[in-house]
Amino acid sequence: MVDCDVHQDWATDAEFTKYLPKHYWDRGVTTPGQPGWNNPVAESGISRNDSLPEDGGPAGSDRDLLGEHLFEDFGVNYAVLTGPGANNAFGWHPNLHYGTAGVEAYNDWLIEEWLDRDERFLGSLSVVPADPEHAVEEIERVGDHDQMVQVILPGSYENPYGHKRYWPIYEAAENAGLPIATHVSSSSRGTSWAPATGAGIPLSYIEKHAVVPMPLVGNLASVVLEGVFVEFPDLQWLFVEGRFTWLPDMMWQLDKNWKGLGNQVPWLERQPSEYIRENCWFSTQPVPEPENPEHLTQMLDMVHAEETLVYASDYPHWDNDNPKAMLNGVDEDVRRKIFGENAREIYGL
Amino acid sequence: MVDCDVHQDWATDAEFTKYLPKHYWDRGVTTPGQPGWNNPVAESGISRNDSLPEDGGPAGSDRDLLGEHLFEDFGVNYAVLTGPGANNAFGWHPNLHYGTAGVEAYNDWLIEEWLDRDERFLGSLSVVPADPEHAVEEIERVGDHDQMVQVILPGSYENPYGHKRYWPIYEAAENAGLPIATHVSSSSRGTSWAPATGAGIPLSYIEKHAVVPMPLVGNLASVVLEGVFVEFPDLQWLFVEGRFTWLPDMMWQLDKNWKGLGNQVPWLERQPSEYIRENCWFSTQPVPEPENPEHLTQMLDMVHAEETLVYASDYPHWDNDNPKAMLNGVDEDVRRKIFGENAREIYGL
Repeated sequence: MVDCDVHQDWATDAEFTKYLPKHYWDRGVTTPGQPGWNNPVAESGISRNDSLPEDGGPAGSDRDLLGEHLFEDFGVNYAVLTGPGANNAFGWHPNLHYGTAGVEAYNDWLIEEWLDRDERFLGSLSVVPADPEHAVEEIERVGDHDQMVQVILPGSYENPYGHKRYWPIYEAAENAGLPIATHVSSSSRGTSWAPATGAGIPLSYIEKHAVVPMPLVGNLASVVLEGVFVEFPDLQWLFVEGRFTWLPDMMWQLDKNWKGLGNQVPWLERQPSEYIRENCWFSTQPVPEPENPEHLTQMLDMVHAEETLVYASDYPHWDNDNPKAMLNGVDEDVRRKIFGENAREIYGL
Repeated sequence: MVDCDVHQDWATDAEFTKYLPKHYWDRGVTTPGQPGWNNPVAESGISRNDSLPEDGGPAGSDRDLLGEHLFEDFGVNYAVLTGPGANNAFGWHPNLHYGTAGVEAYNDWLIEEWLDRDERFLGSLSVVPADPEHAVEEIERVGDHDQMVQVILPGSYENPYGHKRYWPIYEAAENAGLPIATHVSSSSRGTSWAPATGAGIPLSYIEKHAVVPMPLVGNLASVVLEGVFVEFPDLQWLFVEGRFTWLPDMMWQLDKNWKGLGNQVPWLERQPSEYIRENCWFSTQPVPEPENPEHLTQMLDMVHAEETLVYASDYPHWDNDNPKAMLNGVDEDVRRKIFGENAREIYGL
């Protein structure tokens, strides 16, 4: 007999890694089942080495260690938890039955294991964009927890977020007094589009990391132009981990397009940038570090930083931003708004 | 007998249009065969009304009318022809046999009907990115025409342009002394990714128009990081009709990523922004018009305009930029470079 299909495997990553060129040895293995464009980065994946708990759990899974880094080292008072990759993974899981069960479990776990144990932890309520009916029920079920401060959506999902299919979620969020947050991410499973950019699948992690905000850019244009903030004027929307230095490009072009093509969106009552300044927020991470420090000041002015930016560390990722080492030299009033006042207003703290 | 599938049609667009709400009446009809997200815009499509020839041909098809607008009204001395939509349509046609025959025909038509009739017309040599072998032959066949000044690629194509599959095209272009140009576009036929952005298919023309540069952003990251300009140091690359105000975001982030993740791209000899400043160019159209004119000056400084920008009108599109009505107040040395000196250097005029 000949068996024409048998799946062998290596016992440990190390057994295989030594067959790769040496400069890959300290980066872990991209096993065939993983999306190849996201690895290899480093042995600790995309996390700070010192964020890995000693007992071997993943980065961010030890409350005490996380608290030590954020509350003590960084001096943070409240930490908005956006979850592991698995958070968004439930949100965009193509199996709606498992996806909705997954977000319910995630929200329960979040409340029991994190929010109820420390009032400095604030939660992001996970939903499945493809099932707005379930999302509304989930917002009603757990959205009134004092520390549940926002509804989180995957970075992109099938249709852009201006699409009416999602509006019941926005209505429920507005009614519950919860902002919407979209965090950069991509499913690679057909429930979101080509990772990050219309140019195709990036060839390396460094390439993907550079273009990762693009779905947020597209979704910003979509929610503003489709009139989400006309229908839900009190809804606040956060764009997380997607930079903000592309914002002048979009604000200027959206306003220019509105002058020439405004008849396509007759429901808009003001120019697009006004909705952005009133309803949209952008997290600072990764913070820009231009060679010429004046360019940073100019950029903050272009994006109206005092009314559009909120601080985020992106802990425990390798490129997390320490609040003590960023935006130095920026006007103190603007710094206070970015590092706390804006978020306190958005989240009603 | 019952025939269960018979395709009826309307005799004229007007016959159908009157069934639509009134505000669509002057915009032409998006017939079912057209991609819905690109229309309806206006009766003249996306072109200036006065660019439509009196004899009924499409905008840009009458050399005399085009010349009157560009050479007389705008005061342009040389016009780099980037072709109708059909230009890129051959480049990304999924049928490689028809696609390669199409670009050969296009290049022959371009030479006979335009370049050989007026030396102020400069040509963009069309190729099929999926068939580099044919592309190289085509560059060798017609690339030495005095007025053929660049090789043009679709705005995006299957893999990002850093991918090695395309490198034979770059080698041939460098050998022929021709820059590469990529012009914003999307095939909607599977040979390029979701129009414009990883957020999904834009819901309207105004939305699509706002995010249309995104594939260029992704391709810029790709060609720089994959080392195209290390292998082909003399190759110049133009990004056309994709704005430039997103460039600070990319230059700063690419340099930052290179510091942290440079071991992924060990072939780079300098930080990414240096390759951009040395090998990449961006057309001005659509020119930014920020409310605060100082922001424009600051933006030009951030992107090192004198070594990265070239003027383009985007004629005959509705939002074409008249050189007499843009970048006023900008330093005269910078203006001279943008409006002519840079292009003369790139194209060897």
